[in-house]
Amino acid sequence: MPIRLSELAGRLGLELRGTDKTVLGVNTLEKAGPDEIAFLAGPKHVHLLASTRAGAVLLEEKHAPAAACALVSANVRLDWARVVALFAEPQGSLRGVHSLAFVHDDAQIHETATVYPFAFIGPRSVIGPGCTVFPGCYVGEDCVLAENCTLYPNVVLMAGTRLGRNVIIHPGTSIGADGYGYVQGAAGHVKVPQIGRVEIADDVEIGANSAVDRAALDATRIGAGAKIDNLVQIGHNVQIGPYCLLVSQVGIAGSTIVGAGVVMGGQAGVADNLVIGDRAILAPKAGVGRDVPAGTAVGGAPFMDYNIYRRAGLALPKLPELLHRVRRLEKEIASLKGTAAEEESQDA
Amino acid sequence: MPIRLSELAGRLGLELRGTDKTVLGVNTLEKAGPDEIAFLAGPKHVHLLASTRAGAVLLEEKHAPAAACALVSANVRLDWARVVALFAEPQGSLRGVHSLAFVHDDAQIHETATVYPFAFIGPRSVIGPGCTVFPGCYVGEDCVLAENCTLYPNVVLMAGTRLGRNVIIHPGTSIGADGYGYVQGAAGHVKVPQIGRVEIADDVEIGANSAVDRAALDATRIGAGAKIDNLVQIGHNVQIGPYCLLVSQVGIAGSTIVGAGVVMGGQAGVADNLVIGDRAILAPKAGVGRDVPAGTAVGGAPFMDYNIYRRAGLALPKLPELLHRVRRLEKEIASLKGTAAEEESQDA
Amino acid sequence: MPIRLSELAGRLGLELRGTDKTVLGVNTLEKAGPDEIAFLAGPKHVHLLASTRAGAVLLEEKHAPAAACALVSANVRLDWARVVALFAEPQGSLRGVHSLAFVHDDAQIHETATVYPFAFIGPRSVIGPGCTVFPGCYVGEDCVLAENCTLYPNVVLMAGTRLGRNVIIHPGTSIGADGYGYVQGAAGHVKVPQIGRVEIADDVEIGANSAVDRAALDATRIGAGAKIDNLVQIGHNVQIGPYCLLVSQVGIAGSTIVGAGVVMGGQAGVADNLVIGDRAILAPKAGVGRDVPAGTAVGGAPFMDYNIYRRAGLALPKLPELLHRVRRLEKEIASLKGTAAEEESQDA
Repeated sequence: MPIRLSELAGRLGLELRGTDKTVLGVNTLEKAGPDEIAFLAGPKHVHLLASTRAGAVLLEEKHAPAAACALVSANVRLDWARVVALFAEPQGSLRGVHSLAFVHDDAQIHETATVYPFAFIGPRSVIGPGCTVFPGCYVGEDCVLAENCTLYPNVVLMAGTRLGRNVIIHPGTSIGADGYGYVQGAAGHVKVPQIGRVEIADDVEIGANSAVDRAALDATRIGAGAKIDNLVQIGHNVQIGPYCLLVSQVGIAGSTIVGAGVVMGGQAGVADNLVIGDRAILAPKAGVGRDVPAGTAVGGAPFMDYNIYRRAGLALPKLPELLHRVRRLEKEIASLKGTAAEEESQDA
Repeated sequence: MPIRLSELAGRLGLELRGTDKTVLGVNTLEKAGPDEIAFLAGPKHVHLLASTRAGAVLLEEKHAPAAACALVSANVRLDWARVVALFAEPQGSLRGVHSLAFVHDDAQIHETATVYPFAFIGPRSVIGPGCTVFPGCYVGEDCVLAENCTLYPNVVLMAGTRLGRNVIIHPGTSIGADGYGYVQGAAGHVKVPQIGRVEIADDVEIGANSAVDRAALDATRIGAGAKIDNLVQIGHNVQIGPYCLLVSQVGIAGSTIVGAGVVMGGQAGVADNLVIGDRAILAPKAGVGRDVPAGTAVGGAPFMDYNIYRRAGLALPKLPELLHRVRRLEKEIASLKGTAAEEESQDA
Repeated sequence: MPIRLSELAGRLGLELRGTDKTVLGVNTLEKAGPDEIAFLAGPKHVHLLASTRAGAVLLEEKHAPAAACALVSANVRLDWARVVALFAEPQGSLRGVHSLAFVHDDAQIHETATVYPFAFIGPRSVIGPGCTVFPGCYVGEDCVLAENCTLYPNVVLMAGTRLGRNVIIHPGTSIGADGYGYVQGAAGHVKVPQIGRVEIADDVEIGANSAVDRAALDATRIGAGAKIDNLVQIGHNVQIGPYCLLVSQVGIAGSTIVGAGVVMGGQAGVADNLVIGDRAILAPKAGVGRDVPAGTAVGGAPFMDYNIYRRAGLALPKLPELLHRVRRLEKEIASLKGTAAEEESQDA
């Protein structure tokens, strides 16, 4: 989409310093051409301003003088997201319900929704306005996609899944598969039938090949605005608060309650039936087996306060040598006690 | 399915204490209505008995007096699984082989099996009685689904995969992809062709987006009654014993032999060519690089005895301070030795 | 494929010692029959040579006398890969573009390529000579599969993905989904549109249910000959060098640069914006939060030199006892100091 810099600046509330021109897209400082906008992420890239061929650079006030053509922003990262959004084209190439899709007679597809070939929409499911269901998706019975939701290819929604508005789910993710629930019986593990559902609130985005299990009873819930990365596991009956950030390969076991705005680093794991307080931060690879209080940062497995974790991490490589040092101290003490004992006996 | 409490109690061998009535389903103590059954999971929820609106509560003898209408059980968790099973409806909405499925001319589909649209059944594969193959599943050449198996959407069985009876595989799981086998050649890694298969015994359940690789030669095997969670990795030639429980995000590398009844907590990892003895327990996130004897519980990475692991976990945060303490001790010892040396020289 | 041992030996440059015969396949030493070839992986299996029924055994010179019929090799593992390749049959049963595939009018499918039922090929995508696209695959807009690539079932290539020659991608893997990029806005996390792509060089193999995210701008790249296992996460803008080996469940966060020939063990994790030097080795479960220099081996989380990591791993179980020992030393020192102080006062 070609756009004049002046128009773009006007729309986004930026200040243009330099010659107005038409631009066609965005790129990195290194690769942008004269018809592309780039951005200055931080001070360590300032030297690139001298050599960039970019038609304009989005940057902070203080770096503007170094750019031939500047778009000045008080919040570069946020405004960059808005600039890119102007040029980003949605994926996909079709519109409407394709003849090679399977849509059950009892399903409702809004007239503005798109259903690709090889997508399956089950009975009593509702695909709301502006929703897109890519090829290979399965939407089971009684699901709801409220509005403007995108299911990328091969996403699976098992029966009863409900999505709010603007929910995005990336390829291969499974929503609503049975939770992992068994009871020891006389002859092996007996399955506890999982009859709950998954409810996902507005503005949630879930990455590729993740899994969110349906509840045993009631619902597994993902709160509004939560952003979940690839290959993440959310167990049955888990409750994820609004605005949480769960990075790739995180795993959260059944019935754990995660507060609002919690951040979990990659490969962190949380055991079942715990409470993770609002705004808690779990470092990558943290292993959490007890409740985490609100507002605290933790790391390690078993987890500890984050600052202690960092210090323990620095100390751990010294442990083998520490063992030697303690052994030496013990000998020296024994020797000193021997001396002392000798002296005492001499004194006596 | 509406059922009288008296009939349900009779069928499952429970004792009904309270007024008989018709119930329609199950729910939690908090949410159940008068036509639903709830259950009392443990003593910490006893206070809910006073306020629950549930039509009946499944519970232990000792808590029965506190419930308006009780279903008394000697094994609440097991009986709850059986109660829920009475009301659980299977997922899915179609029957028979759909015209939009691809079934190879040389495949055999039992007349009681269901094959959904967009499922693919390859040559010489056999889909046995009562099996269901959901949309987007791929069943390659020479596969066998013995009886009453369920492949949820987008499950992939590569060539030669054999499933026993009552096997359930959740969405997106890959069975029989090539194992990770390469040899260093003159010009990069040379692939060792993987020509074995996967054999899965009766009553196995595998979660969503997991991966079980085919053997290099012979077979990767999952023993009867094993229950495998989401996002689990099973490498080529691994042998999983019967009744194992592998929790989400566990990874087991090639050719490792896992005994019967082994339990692995979430995100545990096991290296290749090891033997994990019967009934061993791996704590979540355990990292196993040596054999684990039968009947032992281990944790940590590298792993250690579970009780030591717990104590080491409590001790680790004290390590930075311990370094300081030892440094202080060393100084004090040096000072004492100095004193002692001085004394000795004075003595001399 | 039946083949005479003499012909096979001639083709692969092996020496046949024993009676020539026709063989039909390969198997393990334990299971091979008279018309199958087995191989001797290492000295610990030499005892099996006495009992094997194999028609011939591939082995090192020094073990040849113990085999009834030997194929002598200077590099058994590499030659075994070549022997197996002679007998390995490719998966799949169809040829050509199936009528139940969806191929966009603006896509180009080479006449020697195969596209299965329920595969989707988007506009302007190119499927090159000898490529195979299995059922349930999605190839979005503007993708390129250069030559002889295999997409196993349910692989997803989002818009703009480019594959070189001989690329193999196993079931369920997602290439080119949006990277995990958000900016804090006034009302929650604002998505940074991801408009880059993924480029995968020649001879790359990627396992099942992995995820490689598209770049925010520019491209996420996987270098030639890299071999990536199942359930691996590669974040946006990551650059993977040639000939890397990334074992199952590894995770690499955004914009990290991985050099040539790097090996990462299972479940290792690497944070964002780091540089991992050529030929570095990460032990399984390593947690990497700083750059790793070329040629070094590291382990642990936080990571340390591999040899120190091994020693620290052996030392950690002794930590609880070490705390006791230090406490005892402190008491003894206090006691000695008391004695010393006493003596001093006596001396005084």
